[in-house]
Amino acid sequence: MDLKSKIREIPDWPKPGVNFKDIAPLLQDAAAFKQAIDELAAPYIGKQVDVVVAIDARGFLLATAVAYKLDAGVALVRKKGKLPWKTINREYALEYGSNIIEMHEDAVKPGQKVLMVDDVLATGGTMEAAVWMVRQLGGEIIGASFLIGLSFLNGKEKLSGVEVKELVIY
Amino acid sequence: MDLKSKIREIPDWPKPGVNFKDIAPLLQDAAAFKQAIDELAAPYIGKQVDVVVAIDARGFLLATAVAYKLDAGVALVRKKGKLPWKTINREYALEYGSNIIEMHEDAVKPGQKVLMVDDVLATGGTMEAAVWMVRQLGGEIIGASFLIGLSFLNGKEKLSGVEVKELVIY
Repeated sequence: MDLKSKIREIPDWPKPGVNFKDIAPLLQDAAAFKQAIDELAAPYIGKQVDVVVAIDARGFLLATAVAYKLDAGVALVRKKGKLPWKTINREYALEYGSNIIEMHEDAVKPGQKVLMVDDVLATGGTMEAAVWMVRQLGGEIIGASFLIGLSFLNGKEKLSGVEVKELVIY
Repeated sequence: MDLKSKIREIPDWPKPGVNFKDIAPLLQDAAAFKQAIDELAAPYIGKQVDVVVAIDARGFLLATAVAYKLDAGVALVRKKGKLPWKTINREYALEYGSNIIEMHEDAVKPGQKVLMVDDVLATGGTMEAAVWMVRQLGGEIIGASFLIGLSFLNGKEKLSGVEVKELVIY
């Protein structure tokens, strides 16, 4: 199945000039959802992934099913203030202003093999900050997989040294 | 494995008097995570679930893996303003004030068999509102499954006519 055919484009959302990629129709379609998870997981079967990093909030939708498929655990990256225990954090620049994301200090243990998963690779700012935190905790990143890549935003440039995979490219 | 042993209690979070149940250690542990997903899915294997409803944001972490296990799709319940397409919504009361959650109008099709999944059944307000929306869209709810039930808050009372399952009860 062509997964792109299950992604709904929403013009001018969340603001004028942005053509939002809505993955809800893909998630609702059992066959498309299964195919997406299987394709995200496939390159890492047999690679002994210990934890899959899930990024708040849409990343949660894909990362946990990929972790289940790979018999791995799940580590959370959340927006500031959402995690209840001891955290590390990382600030990153947005088009206007900045954002802070956090992980629990024990979310990844030193030496663990880590797969990063998110829905969209846009400018790469969020994933770059998440990669920084995982390395700070001693994790070994074996790849970063995205359902969608927005190639015109050059997000891969921010993720040097990380094997990046994208299932659907715009 | 006793799943409760993998849940971390955080006193006085997010506010004094609340003993928060942190599921992060359970998610991080591959064996505990797999057991939780398998136990959430088990009663519904062979019941032809069409979609699993995932509730923003921690519900996303469990619902999608359960959907994957059941070969079902995923339908999203999100906080107001997060969904990009045409929505229905439902307001529900909180201890102080109220909250509004939304679903896309096409998230569930009439006659589909729907399993609701969330992390915690507390007062039941969120799930009651989500159940209302799924029925509004014509879905047939075959159950609501929670990783954790806070029995002292009597959330089941709000979910009359829904088969409720909880894996870990406080």
